[in-house]
Amino acid sequence: MEGEPTRIIVAVNESTIKGYPHASISSRGAFEWSVQKIIRSNTSGFKLLFLHVQVPDEDGFDDMDSIYASPEDFRRMQHRDKVRGLHLLEYFVNRCHEIGVACEAWIKKGDPKEVICREVQRVQPDLLVVGSRGLGPFQRVFVGTVSEFCVKHAECPVITIKRRADETPEDPVDD
Amino acid sequence: MEGEPTRIIVAVNESTIKGYPHASISSRGAFEWSVQKIIRSNTSGFKLLFLHVQVPDEDGFDDMDSIYASPEDFRRMQHRDKVRGLHLLEYFVNRCHEIGVACEAWIKKGDPKEVICREVQRVQPDLLVVGSRGLGPFQRVFVGTVSEFCVKHAECPVITIKRRADETPEDPVDD
Repeated sequence: MEGEPTRIIVAVNESTIKGYPHASISSRGAFEWSVQKIIRSNTSGFKLLFLHVQVPDEDGFDDMDSIYASPEDFRRMQHRDKVRGLHLLEYFVNRCHEIGVACEAWIKKGDPKEVICREVQRVQPDLLVVGSRGLGPFQRVFVGTVSEFCVKHAECPVITIKRRADETPEDPVDD
Repeated sequence: MEGEPTRIIVAVNESTIKGYPHASISSRGAFEWSVQKIIRSNTSGFKLLFLHVQVPDEDGFDDMDSIYASPEDFRRMQHRDKVRGLHLLEYFVNRCHEIGVACEAWIKKGDPKEVICREVQRVQPDLLVVGSRGLGPFQRVFVGTVSEFCVKHAECPVITIKRRADETPEDPVDD
């Protein structure tokens, strides 16, 4: 009756705040918003596709095209303990398993805004969700915004989820 | 278990193509996309709020603040047969009744992009959905785009649904 699930790419990145890899505030916000406001109790109606784009030379990871779809897939990779991107994706895949939503997650290297749009073209999701720090125009000049680029150029509908004011860190450029 | 429904404002307007009032291609596209991709079978999890902004002096309608929530509400108004905006909203309210999704619909007068953002501020929906003709940069200079303004200024997440290429009328500025 429901047909194919709605496929949502959620673009996620790491926090800039601490040394240990963990999801940025805006990535977590975008994910939790999608679960609470869109998926709600209809967990079988959706599939979440987590895309993490690593800027080249960030680390030595070179196994970019594997797909990780369960916690087990990650345990096999645990010996690669420097792989920060996997920890990031593991967080979201684990959350999906808790909630009961189907998911996939993968890593690409490159310029995030361009890779996200290229992956949208390749994967053809129904929707792209991107978190945003919600910076003002002055700050945007220096840090650029991936979300604005995707809203303009991605070949599917895009939702930008702005970080909540009460979650903004001391330096709003941090995330 | 599900709590409050997700409240989505769908901004709708009339077609520019024929003399008789009916929903624009991009309004219908934005609505149908929301039903198929977001609401899906979870009809009790969502409430659709249809906002139609009429440009002043378009007609003599001056009863702007009523709320219409069922087909009956419209039948009482049938004698105002010049009220084009009601026909437009009736279309969407009837569709919601067919599908079984709760809805409300109302009309405001003013500059659509500014009124939509003001209504978002007032109503505080979870999401705003706006249709777009998907015009190129050259055409946008002349017609402006409500969707771009809302993406920048609305105080809630916004999805822009571009009109499908196979639904573009002969003159793409038409809708």
